[in-house]
Amino acid sequence: MSEILVVGSVAYDTITTPEGKAEHILGGSANYFSVAASFYSSVKVVGVVGEDYREEDIELLKSRNVCLEGLQKVPGKTFHWEGFYEGDMNEAQTVETQLNVFENFKPILPQSYKKVPFVFLANIDPDIQMDVYNQMTSVSLAGLDTMNFWIDSKRESLKKILQKVDVLLINEGEARKLGESHNTIQAIERLGSWGPKAVVVKRGEYGFVLYSDEQFFILPAFPVKEVIDPTGAGDTFAGGFLGYLSKTWEGSLEHSKLKQACVQGCLLASFTVEGFGLTRLKNLSWAEVEARHAEYLKVISYYN
Amino acid sequence: MSEILVVGSVAYDTITTPEGKAEHILGGSANYFSVAASFYSSVKVVGVVGEDYREEDIELLKSRNVCLEGLQKVPGKTFHWEGFYEGDMNEAQTVETQLNVFENFKPILPQSYKKVPFVFLANIDPDIQMDVYNQMTSVSLAGLDTMNFWIDSKRESLKKILQKVDVLLINEGEARKLGESHNTIQAIERLGSWGPKAVVVKRGEYGFVLYSDEQFFILPAFPVKEVIDPTGAGDTFAGGFLGYLSKTWEGSLEHSKLKQACVQGCLLASFTVEGFGLTRLKNLSWAEVEARHAEYLKVISYYN
Repeated sequence: MSEILVVGSVAYDTITTPEGKAEHILGGSANYFSVAASFYSSVKVVGVVGEDYREEDIELLKSRNVCLEGLQKVPGKTFHWEGFYEGDMNEAQTVETQLNVFENFKPILPQSYKKVPFVFLANIDPDIQMDVYNQMTSVSLAGLDTMNFWIDSKRESLKKILQKVDVLLINEGEARKLGESHNTIQAIERLGSWGPKAVVVKRGEYGFVLYSDEQFFILPAFPVKEVIDPTGAGDTFAGGFLGYLSKTWEGSLEHSKLKQACVQGCLLASFTVEGFGLTRLKNLSWAEVEARHAEYLKVISYYN
Repeated sequence: MSEILVVGSVAYDTITTPEGKAEHILGGSANYFSVAASFYSSVKVVGVVGEDYREEDIELLKSRNVCLEGLQKVPGKTFHWEGFYEGDMNEAQTVETQLNVFENFKPILPQSYKKVPFVFLANIDPDIQMDVYNQMTSVSLAGLDTMNFWIDSKRESLKKILQKVDVLLINEGEARKLGESHNTIQAIERLGSWGPKAVVVKRGEYGFVLYSDEQFFILPAFPVKEVIDPTGAGDTFAGGFLGYLSKTWEGSLEHSKLKQACVQGCLLASFTVEGFGLTRLKNLSWAEVEARHAEYLKVISYYN
């Protein structure tokens, strides 16, 4: 089985949406990514948690065969994010971010992690992303996400790590900000010129834009009738996307395979938003993914 | 050749976008619709202009074989809208609306218009939409657009005319408002239950959602690298959509044909946004539409 390493946040979230409120539930980019990617691949996590991290949350990841050898447990509290969504739920509003043990996070890769061929550098400090990347010795494919905070505060570090990675996965607003254009298509072309072989822009309910080999591939998300909580959809997308690429890897990034990978990410993310936190994703069966894939094809197919 | 009647605004617009400013240029829903639909069908316009309406603007429509017998010229000035777009240009901001001669518009259909089988009731007072509909004697297919102002002020009139028409074409924000749901999919299902056989939600750069026969069809817009002015994109979409349906009409609304019609509308609208007002659309050739259709298929096709 292929192996993927992910470095990112492991968190407890308190989330309010028009559909309700959930307090101190499991979250963080590394967790969403891991559960999604575990459908395709064997995942290894690099991250940090505090003494309050619950045994059941460890068990959830273990039940998905996720390796937690690189998850450090240190004195203090686990990273906590509180936020809410309004209206169409397209954007999270932050109430409070408590970095806690994440503040002094220094990732150290266990020996068994260093030769892993696939890596996802989730949304964290680009200097830490570079540090993790440099500890790896045999990378075949690296994906990276980032956010406004790093675009504003560490643009140069970000541009350096972008020269190393193969795929940039980024939200649309952040793509426009990083690529310095109000036009998403223009911004993507600029981002592609900085190094990554492929750029994937995540658009929430509007789906995604893939750009590789100077070609665009654009599709909407699966139409979900009851969006409960959009948190983690982007990291779920990345997990499905890189999970699929790692499972089907044949040595190079083909546009046609990237298209399939985007659809896998998109489908998995459509389940994540159907419940708070990981509640929907952790109980998801592959048969449900396949059924939705068939439904999705009907929704997007021009001829039939 | 099939015939379509359109009733809507005929206007002069003053538009500012990040790409520049255009003053007193030809606009209005009936004009955008007419030029777009004229690629497929013979169009008849019902509308009103003032004494300031320019001969060259009459000639433009005539050059597209658009019949202006139902375009009244009355004392006073032509409807004038001034607005601007910022950032991603997804929403127009109104600076000023001068209704002028449009304020007391009472549409009277010439005899030759009454038996036209296809009609588009563009975004105007729903009572006027009903009045026009009632003057027609042989409608095969009616489409309707509306906007926030009428949703707020004339919801009951709107629901009445919605029971008459076959297709509702509406912007996404307005679909949510009219259907009273923050979830577009839920809103569309509700709107569909009020009468129209099909609902088409226009999403700007994110494309469209078609709902008919209890099935969804969703695609993005063609990726345009230089959006100059989004004004009129929705009415252009409607023109391509109803134009295509009128041209290929076989007596009933099939989901598969509605899909094709949406793509036609979407393609034509992608040209409109490439210039101020009607500048791009009026010089558009059918060969350009076909070439873009081929490009679009590459952008949205999952397998190839």
